[in-house]
Amino acid sequence: MGLNIPPTLAARLPLFPTTTHLDETGDGRLTIAGLDLAELARQYGTPLYVYDRASLDATLARYQAALQTHYPGESGITYAGKAFLCLGIAQWTQQHGLWLDCTGAGELAVAFAAGVPRPKVLVHGVNKNQADLSAALQHAGTLVVDNLGELERLAALASTQTGPLPDVWLRLRPGMAVQTHAHTQTGQEDSKFGFGPAELLQAVGLCLRHDLPLTGLHFHQGSHFHDPAPLAPALDIALDLIEEAQSTYRWTPQVLSPGGGWGVPYHEDDLPHLPLETYVQFIAEHLVAGCQQRRVPLPRLHLEPGRSLVAQAGVALYQVGSVKHTLNRRWLLLDGGLADNPRPALYQARYSALPIAGLARPVSGPAWLGGPFCESGDVLISGLPLPEIQPGETIAVPVSGAYQISMSSNYNGARKPAVLWLEDGRASLLQRRQVPEDLYSRDLPLPPGA
Amino acid sequence: MGLNIPPTLAARLPLFPTTTHLDETGDGRLTIAGLDLAELARQYGTPLYVYDRASLDATLARYQAALQTHYPGESGITYAGKAFLCLGIAQWTQQHGLWLDCTGAGELAVAFAAGVPRPKVLVHGVNKNQADLSAALQHAGTLVVDNLGELERLAALASTQTGPLPDVWLRLRPGMAVQTHAHTQTGQEDSKFGFGPAELLQAVGLCLRHDLPLTGLHFHQGSHFHDPAPLAPALDIALDLIEEAQSTYRWTPQVLSPGGGWGVPYHEDDLPHLPLETYVQFIAEHLVAGCQQRRVPLPRLHLEPGRSLVAQAGVALYQVGSVKHTLNRRWLLLDGGLADNPRPALYQARYSALPIAGLARPVSGPAWLGGPFCESGDVLISGLPLPEIQPGETIAVPVSGAYQISMSSNYNGARKPAVLWLEDGRASLLQRRQVPEDLYSRDLPLPPGA
Repeated sequence: MGLNIPPTLAARLPLFPTTTHLDETGDGRLTIAGLDLAELARQYGTPLYVYDRASLDATLARYQAALQTHYPGESGITYAGKAFLCLGIAQWTQQHGLWLDCTGAGELAVAFAAGVPRPKVLVHGVNKNQADLSAALQHAGTLVVDNLGELERLAALASTQTGPLPDVWLRLRPGMAVQTHAHTQTGQEDSKFGFGPAELLQAVGLCLRHDLPLTGLHFHQGSHFHDPAPLAPALDIALDLIEEAQSTYRWTPQVLSPGGGWGVPYHEDDLPHLPLETYVQFIAEHLVAGCQQRRVPLPRLHLEPGRSLVAQAGVALYQVGSVKHTLNRRWLLLDGGLADNPRPALYQARYSALPIAGLARPVSGPAWLGGPFCESGDVLISGLPLPEIQPGETIAVPVSGAYQISMSSNYNGARKPAVLWLEDGRASLLQRRQVPEDLYSRDLPLPPGA
Repeated sequence: MGLNIPPTLAARLPLFPTTTHLDETGDGRLTIAGLDLAELARQYGTPLYVYDRASLDATLARYQAALQTHYPGESGITYAGKAFLCLGIAQWTQQHGLWLDCTGAGELAVAFAAGVPRPKVLVHGVNKNQADLSAALQHAGTLVVDNLGELERLAALASTQTGPLPDVWLRLRPGMAVQTHAHTQTGQEDSKFGFGPAELLQAVGLCLRHDLPLTGLHFHQGSHFHDPAPLAPALDIALDLIEEAQSTYRWTPQVLSPGGGWGVPYHEDDLPHLPLETYVQFIAEHLVAGCQQRRVPLPRLHLEPGRSLVAQAGVALYQVGSVKHTLNRRWLLLDGGLADNPRPALYQARYSALPIAGLARPVSGPAWLGGPFCESGDVLISGLPLPEIQPGETIAVPVSGAYQISMSSNYNGARKPAVLWLEDGRASLLQRRQVPEDLYSRDLPLPPGA
């Protein structure tokens, strides 16, 4: 490469999708899947989210190979729809034979509309209401029950059901979480999620008594963790329970799902990041050893990656409107932020970014990337070294594929962005941008006389 | 009243809309605007947001009376649409002759669709793009310019405009904020908002040179503050600048807008809260004294209340699904939370709640009110003393009228809730509940061959 990219900027390229290429034209210009990002921004407008199919496929292949290599039993992968769900992504999961995790009736409706076959649909949720449970009985292959109250409601509904019931899994609250932001820890003792160990055994008995097709055990300790070690004691608790269920009820789960939640690097300072293979190997080896030790049969191992499958495949593009200098800060004011990506405000998530052209320019100091929303929490990135950036330039924020679009809002009248699918030099819309009319399509005028 | 309501619960009633009534039937049952909340929840489903017209009218009347009493000059009120905007609320502002603050092209489209006349529309935004500026030139009576880059773009657009231009105000960054959550402070020196004082004078010159109809000065120090004292030094800075603009450019603003942002009590522990009259009086007296002292003419005083006008008029209703006991906590799992109200997760906002019936029951200890979303940040209220609550009961969360629906998302497939307008014993829909189909109406299938 003849280009002389500042090392500070070059260090960010590994955060981008696998097909990202640094073209020498335009003083260093980014392409993804052979597509010029500037051209995409021009054609579709900004903020714009793009997903690189090759990155999705490659990460999934790594998960599948790691399970094949490290786990001697059967295994499966469920894509966690909460990370990012739309018709196209649901269809992508079916091209690879994945299961799709849906939370409640809303995500179930998306899976159904996308044609995901019933056996591939798994339903999660800490508080499924009657509509969620009814939708699950109608459309899901597997239903993960969270608590005793829900189990009782399910048993009542199931007794009136004429068709086949979904398989039932129980969600264990192992009493310990992984290291991550408190908002995304889920496994700790006073978490709202799942059955405590004693309750779980009781639930096994209830399922058997009600003739519910109980086939699996699930737990989840948190989202976006980087060290698999806390999975070991949780697996041990699950296996101890399985041993006890075997002796008490002569029941063992066909499937064990230790959830997902493996983290990703968002910023160059997060590199190097332990590869997902380490995470898969850790679970597989611990599970095999634990089953042998307790003489319980090796379950089918189901992983539930969301973020670690999809985050790095996605890139957000924003246009710089104004550049502003305050006492200690250089502000790049973008046309998106809090409304399409609330993660910095919610979890102090630390992102990185690159201009999509002119990468050979020298770095001129730190910049603060703020969105257009009327709130100081709307700062996407703080103090990131960048070249001099001019109004009108486009900025790419990597690792934008998970928990951004899915948590997006219409705050300050923001329209949800367009989302593109990039594959082999072709871009196509996965989601069209909202139009202003979408903001009031559910509104009714004040009643007459009011 | 013959009912014996525990004082812990009775202390929360002042947080509810002015028309809230405790009916003696049902062992203490809440009504608003003469309407039974249980009946509304049954008819419209939950989560449900209700707005009490009488509360809106009463709070507005207090603002208008306070301005009348304390400010000898002209005055006006702009409703801050970012707090909660829909066609019906926009129409309500026009029944009272208010101005409507819109951020960008999205909220402008709502104002236009609601028939808000151009002179009443004011446009804010820290980074208006070309679409926002074009929409403002077409539909706004007043445009608040944030920075020099925007001013230059406006001047270029204005030179090609044939119709009348909106009045132009400049947004000052006074260099000091009010006491509130860091995310909602806006006035501090390194904030992304507005012109620094020296830049602002330069901007005045630019406006005059470009013949832009510059009529006002605006600043805003933050949202949800409870002590007006920090307004004094900011007003002084604004008045010093006006004095300087008068001597340098022979220009003084017709209008001065010190923004809005007055706080409200969300929890009984926030009571008593300084009344809005104290806030209005503080600004008015300081402004009158400052103008006299500097011999500058008294400007029209424009206030921009959002939260303090609308928050207490709104109540959110949720149904309890499961009740769960963990080691140290009693969990009431609700059918809404993070997706319709991200404020606890974003700002650690502390809410209160009451069951809508059975208020005479004894309090049995603290409860944690968690939503149905797959995230531990989805806890609406922590450790709130409540009676024993059964699954199926409805819980009312007061002070839910601002920055909840307007920041809501579709996370985990949540559908945005229905919103009702309550007036004189009649309920009517302001916004219909989203249906599952709304979640994928913008989606396209994967391209053929993909």
